[in-house]
Amino acid sequence: VNSRYSHAKPHSIPGTLQHIGARRLDVARMSVIEYDEQRCVVRDVTDPRLCRQPTAAKQVTWLNVDGTHDPQVMEVLGAQFNLHSLVLEDVMSAGERPKLEEHDNNIFLVLKMLDWDEQRGQIVVEQVSLVLGPDYVLTFQQCVGDVFDDVRERIRQSKGRIRKMGADYLAYALIDATVDHYFVVLEKVAEWADELDVEVERAPQRVRPQDMHVLKRELLFLRRAIAPARETLGTLAHIHDNELISNGVSVFLRDVHDHVVQVTETIELMRESLTSILDVYHAAAANRMNEVMKLLTVISTIFIPLTFVAGVYGMNFDNMPELHWQHGYFYALALMAGVGVATFGYVKWNRWL
Amino acid sequence: VNSRYSHAKPHSIPGTLQHIGARRLDVARMSVIEYDEQRCVVRDVTDPRLCRQPTAAKQVTWLNVDGTHDPQVMEVLGAQFNLHSLVLEDVMSAGERPKLEEHDNNIFLVLKMLDWDEQRGQIVVEQVSLVLGPDYVLTFQQCVGDVFDDVRERIRQSKGRIRKMGADYLAYALIDATVDHYFVVLEKVAEWADELDVEVERAPQRVRPQDMHVLKRELLFLRRAIAPARETLGTLAHIHDNELISNGVSVFLRDVHDHVVQVTETIELMRESLTSILDVYHAAAANRMNEVMKLLTVISTIFIPLTFVAGVYGMNFDNMPELHWQHGYFYALALMAGVGVATFGYVKWNRWL
Amino acid sequence: VNSRYSHAKPHSIPGTLQHIGARRLDVARMSVIEYDEQRCVVRDVTDPRLCRQPTAAKQVTWLNVDGTHDPQVMEVLGAQFNLHSLVLEDVMSAGERPKLEEHDNNIFLVLKMLDWDEQRGQIVVEQVSLVLGPDYVLTFQQCVGDVFDDVRERIRQSKGRIRKMGADYLAYALIDATVDHYFVVLEKVAEWADELDVEVERAPQRVRPQDMHVLKRELLFLRRAIAPARETLGTLAHIHDNELISNGVSVFLRDVHDHVVQVTETIELMRESLTSILDVYHAAAANRMNEVMKLLTVISTIFIPLTFVAGVYGMNFDNMPELHWQHGYFYALALMAGVGVATFGYVKWNRWL
Amino acid sequence: VNSRYSHAKPHSIPGTLQHIGARRLDVARMSVIEYDEQRCVVRDVTDPRLCRQPTAAKQVTWLNVDGTHDPQVMEVLGAQFNLHSLVLEDVMSAGERPKLEEHDNNIFLVLKMLDWDEQRGQIVVEQVSLVLGPDYVLTFQQCVGDVFDDVRERIRQSKGRIRKMGADYLAYALIDATVDHYFVVLEKVAEWADELDVEVERAPQRVRPQDMHVLKRELLFLRRAIAPARETLGTLAHIHDNELISNGVSVFLRDVHDHVVQVTETIELMRESLTSILDVYHAAAANRMNEVMKLLTVISTIFIPLTFVAGVYGMNFDNMPELHWQHGYFYALALMAGVGVATFGYVKWNRWL
Amino acid sequence: VNSRYSHAKPHSIPGTLQHIGARRLDVARMSVIEYDEQRCVVRDVTDPRLCRQPTAAKQVTWLNVDGTHDPQVMEVLGAQFNLHSLVLEDVMSAGERPKLEEHDNNIFLVLKMLDWDEQRGQIVVEQVSLVLGPDYVLTFQQCVGDVFDDVRERIRQSKGRIRKMGADYLAYALIDATVDHYFVVLEKVAEWADELDVEVERAPQRVRPQDMHVLKRELLFLRRAIAPARETLGTLAHIHDNELISNGVSVFLRDVHDHVVQVTETIELMRESLTSILDVYHAAAANRMNEVMKLLTVISTIFIPLTFVAGVYGMNFDNMPELHWQHGYFYALALMAGVGVATFGYVKWNRWL
Repeated sequence: VNSRYSHAKPHSIPGTLQHIGARRLDVARMSVIEYDEQRCVVRDVTDPRLCRQPTAAKQVTWLNVDGTHDPQVMEVLGAQFNLHSLVLEDVMSAGERPKLEEHDNNIFLVLKMLDWDEQRGQIVVEQVSLVLGPDYVLTFQQCVGDVFDDVRERIRQSKGRIRKMGADYLAYALIDATVDHYFVVLEKVAEWADELDVEVERAPQRVRPQDMHVLKRELLFLRRAIAPARETLGTLAHIHDNELISNGVSVFLRDVHDHVVQVTETIELMRESLTSILDVYHAAAANRMNEVMKLLTVISTIFIPLTFVAGVYGMNFDNMPELHWQHGYFYALALMAGVGVATFGYVKWNRWL
Repeated sequence: VNSRYSHAKPHSIPGTLQHIGARRLDVARMSVIEYDEQRCVVRDVTDPRLCRQPTAAKQVTWLNVDGTHDPQVMEVLGAQFNLHSLVLEDVMSAGERPKLEEHDNNIFLVLKMLDWDEQRGQIVVEQVSLVLGPDYVLTFQQCVGDVFDDVRERIRQSKGRIRKMGADYLAYALIDATVDHYFVVLEKVAEWADELDVEVERAPQRVRPQDMHVLKRELLFLRRAIAPARETLGTLAHIHDNELISNGVSVFLRDVHDHVVQVTETIELMRESLTSILDVYHAAAANRMNEVMKLLTVISTIFIPLTFVAGVYGMNFDNMPELHWQHGYFYALALMAGVGVATFGYVKWNRWL
Repeated sequence: VNSRYSHAKPHSIPGTLQHIGARRLDVARMSVIEYDEQRCVVRDVTDPRLCRQPTAAKQVTWLNVDGTHDPQVMEVLGAQFNLHSLVLEDVMSAGERPKLEEHDNNIFLVLKMLDWDEQRGQIVVEQVSLVLGPDYVLTFQQCVGDVFDDVRERIRQSKGRIRKMGADYLAYALIDATVDHYFVVLEKVAEWADELDVEVERAPQRVRPQDMHVLKRELLFLRRAIAPARETLGTLAHIHDNELISNGVSVFLRDVHDHVVQVTETIELMRESLTSILDVYHAAAANRMNEVMKLLTVISTIFIPLTFVAGVYGMNFDNMPELHWQHGYFYALALMAGVGVATFGYVKWNRWL
Repeated sequence: VNSRYSHAKPHSIPGTLQHIGARRLDVARMSVIEYDEQRCVVRDVTDPRLCRQPTAAKQVTWLNVDGTHDPQVMEVLGAQFNLHSLVLEDVMSAGERPKLEEHDNNIFLVLKMLDWDEQRGQIVVEQVSLVLGPDYVLTFQQCVGDVFDDVRERIRQSKGRIRKMGADYLAYALIDATVDHYFVVLEKVAEWADELDVEVERAPQRVRPQDMHVLKRELLFLRRAIAPARETLGTLAHIHDNELISNGVSVFLRDVHDHVVQVTETIELMRESLTSILDVYHAAAANRMNEVMKLLTVISTIFIPLTFVAGVYGMNFDNMPELHWQHGYFYALALMAGVGVATFGYVKWNRWL
Repeated sequence: VNSRYSHAKPHSIPGTLQHIGARRLDVARMSVIEYDEQRCVVRDVTDPRLCRQPTAAKQVTWLNVDGTHDPQVMEVLGAQFNLHSLVLEDVMSAGERPKLEEHDNNIFLVLKMLDWDEQRGQIVVEQVSLVLGPDYVLTFQQCVGDVFDDVRERIRQSKGRIRKMGADYLAYALIDATVDHYFVVLEKVAEWADELDVEVERAPQRVRPQDMHVLKRELLFLRRAIAPARETLGTLAHIHDNELISNGVSVFLRDVHDHVVQVTETIELMRESLTSILDVYHAAAANRMNEVMKLLTVISTIFIPLTFVAGVYGMNFDNMPELHWQHGYFYALALMAGVGVATFGYVKWNRWL
């Protein structure tokens, strides 16, 4: 599916596991981090049945899965963590819209992870699904490489408060890392918009309308990826009656929500600014056209009558008295000079040019 | 009714049965599927009085009617399933807006079934009405051929959970099949929009404004068919106090609602992208115009003064000293060359062209 | 008041009866229909005091008044049916916005009755006010001729359920007749829009911008007349705690509301489509301009240099060697042909034209 | 402050009395009307301490103040009627937005009084502040001359019900008089818009774009003055739990609210119509441009090649056989006629013009 | 970060203190004002541990911090006033969106302080964070220089009621000073918009499209800084159940909210007016283009045919009878005059020009 308008394809049987989207990874890679305030164990897992181990009380388990295309792996994970079949289906589908679902024993969240592809100069969107349970967090990504390294480091080195808090704080930290990366991508797009902005003020003729279209389209795709997350995280930040999220963490989630709101507002700002840039572009193009037309008109208006006069005295009639005057030629030159100056003056005086 | 703005015609007496819309089928075709976890019976019915048979407990009856133009058939069905006269009226009217009505003993839902007509290159809209009762689902379509074959197959072959669930899950499966087909149609329109997108970036002059208008109109019609379904299915997914829909099925209905939301957002995205494409088109057209005008201006600006000089020395005055100079002709040629180069240089230097 | 932006003029004293709007009828015509399941009496009344007669239980009285300009008649009617002075004032004012008011003993509704004036090719708007009491319905119109004939016929001939139902069903039937007529007017406008649509695809140059403006303005007026009715009828359809409207009739009112929603959505659809048509028109006009400019440029670019060459050899210098060559003329012709072909080829090669 | 974007200037100390806006009146003029069903006393007051006199029960006092620039007068009035310091501050500031405030012992309302300045052809806005207490109404205006004369007359002559009702009805009557005058101003603007509408249909070239801008700006200012009043009066009309407003008067306030809604909708209608007029204007300007270009192209396309032919036979080569043919001249004329007709025919055949 | 789209950069660890934004000040400057009705002490502090001193009952402490880049200072202050780590983080980040957070023991508010940079002719935005506790107010600014001098003066000189009120009134006074300064900035922008308005009416050709773009962009940035404050202050003004804000102060906060609403509406008004100005600009540019084209067309249409006639009689055929007529030359001149007048008349008659 190459179209950037692409989306979840229809599944044949609801609740049947089926990978949708490009198969970016051959084998699913699973890595588990188990930690509490004292200990922290990191291990890679190949057999999904080993993901969940009987753990001590208050220990938090974070399972990250890269590659969601293998139905068998997903089914085992679903059984282990007691996931609804629709959750598994959404995890495997790449084109889901950011959304939040409260299930009996967990909270399911779909977000978009954004990155900037320097080479192609466009935004890369990857889906990240997150399941928050009482003492575990599951994250599912389509391919290797994410924005969670910083969180992993903080857990390992016990930076900040993360090791003292529960699974809900871990979920917050992961959402926060995802949203913070939006700013990095936004910064790239802002540079692009700033360049256009400067260019259109300095030399509008160098801006290609196609460039503006490409930026506008990129902003549209950016908004499609982020805008639903605004509503989703707003809902998440204001859940009060779910024991999976403690009050202390709600404050942090509201902070993330503020950041998403900021991102969406900046996107809107850029879109409106781009519309204004387009207006300038059109106006400048019309002005250049005017300049060209004026030049043509000045030249034509002055010389066409003079050429006519020269043509008259180039006629071959036998009886043309002026031709035989002593200074006829010079009178004619003077006449032409006079007509030229008069025409030019008349045009100037009327401010037509 | 050829107009694509067409709609339900006024009925003379409310509650009087009257077919509205093109009569696409001569005789109504009724087919009944009765199933429970163990058994599944499929039969075609010609006499509407035989549609409902005394059934064992927990058995689900699905009656599909192709062709809704015969008032007598509809009246018998209405009596058998205890339908409100307005429900029958809406079923028979082809131009209804997607809507949801909760009646005492059933839930009535109107949706649009979309298909892509490859030959005419446009979207075909058909209305599908669905009545969900305690142990039955009725579906009414205007003509033969639908997107339900997959559901029929799943019932017959007992794929997935469908045979274990009640009538509400069957209704969900049918709605889901309808909405999934929206993605197929959307994919076609997305291809179309992508082609325009690529074309306008590569060679804007080849794009015809009419093409953009046709796509835009198609998107408008698509939105009209789908947008109200967003609200309708949202309401359906959040019904909590109606015993016709069990909690287990509500989760699935919310999933369908998410898909419809995704479809409507993609339509909006395409519309905005199309607006941007139109801007590029206009800018490119203005640019081409500029190019043409510049060529005309260059040629005119250089040659009009030269032609004037030639005209002067083509005059027939007796006394024109230059004409008798030994190298007058060559001086004139040099003068003309000089004027031409000077004009061209002046224009270039001023960056008028 | 000729302006189509016209509206209710300020009244000097609130609650003082005063006719506003063109006085279209000399004398108010009142007709009364009294009916129950068995009987139906139709009578014309000239004395407003005779409108309400002591009636048997369960009998419904429908009083229709054509012409609302006579304050004395209105005052008597107001006293007979116990109407609020503001209701009478609104009935007499022609420019009221569709609205709904619940009073102690009745429900007051203002709607617009639309018709299509074939001759002038524009929509005619007439105000219809409706008062629903426990056992009566009053309708007030500005001039003779309405869309209620069908309802009258159904009462007289006892078609459908109307004779078995109360005053609330009669009110519904009248509102339904009014709204159904919107579709007739909309059909006319849709034909108009379709014609423009076809025309702009086939031959955009034949479309006049004024035509598009007239249609757009007509749509704006249509929306002004209908859009508030959407909200008004929505409120009416969801009144639950008023004993004047029974539950059985609420279902029908919701149906009417659906129809009004459909009408307003179609109007919006047409407006957006019209915007798109305008874009095509502008693009097509720009294209034609481009064609004309290209023709001018081709001719000028080829012939202006050739004319210059001819001018050179038309000069009268004594010493012009080429003139005396044996085949000078033919060389010149060849030169000119060469320049012409070269210019044309250069332009073509650069794809400037 | 000449800018029409002007607004309340920052006050240095909140609650400190300070006049903001042009000082239109030298001395504040106070006039008091005291009335009940039997009596009515009108008196002009110069000492603000005499405004409130001990009155009989059920008597209503209306104090109107023209000129709000004198802090001392305002302070005395504030003490007499027990007004909040922010109320006094708002009364003295000319650029307040229409708003409603419920205080402990009174309701404070700010509205805009509009008038049409025939000479300058623009809308004049004056602020009117209204305080409704249990048995009094205070109105504050910036300069002499208002739309309340009709209300004064009705009180004096005991027209309608005004003398029988309380202070809340008086407040309604004053608001109603203000809003009714909006229609007068709107009528002027509607005439203006109608003229533009007719002009653009008949002779678009006579319409100046500046005229449309001026009207649009006037509509924007009109909307700014009125739109907040829509919300304000809506709130006022739906106050249920404030004993200052009786139920009987609420019905009247809802009527005023309906009128304001009508005004704002008409303003929106005009704005959209104006946008459409602008489209027509642009299209018509482009059409005229096209016509001019076509003329230029026809003349150039036909005559430029002919002039070239004439130039060829004006060359002075010794050996030009055609020149010595008996009928060479006539052949040349025929050739030129043929070329001209062929060019014209070719252009016509291609429908380029 | 030079981009005006800039925003809060992602923080590595939530709750970790880190300054974001340009470091405008080397050392944080802290000044404390402690006052009650009788006393008022002003002191500058360098050690953050000395900011809060045990105070008498009912005394209000206002701590203003200029420069928020030093994590150590911020940490000490956070500990002293018991601030949430996210509050400290937001205070140190320069790109926060205006927002309101209710914490257990304080209310945290972020606003934008605006100023007008005369030299660069653009708006300068600085973030001001405010923490309201039971008996203290903290304000944090990025650099020295603010709009609070007036409030300081009022406290010192005990002007108005400020010394008699609590910390909530002080918070109000500071918010009010911030919002009042919006009007000063708005006045500057309004002047700018007025100039453009006048210029475009008088001489549209002098307006540069870039100027309009710059103003539009400035309005967009203004709106981004202020619009969220509208919602924020609205929430603040309607907090009822928080004992930090007394009822008496709520009235004042509603007044500030009204002012912010006024500012945002004026910004919207300017944006719409600017759109209209742009329309006039485009229309005027098209008109000038038309004028230039008409001049070119008049000259060309008249002289091109005449030049052709002169060319014909400049041909050198042996047998051209007209050349030998006695008055041939004068007949030719008359013919040319006739053709010129006829062409001009034809064009005028057709109103092509």
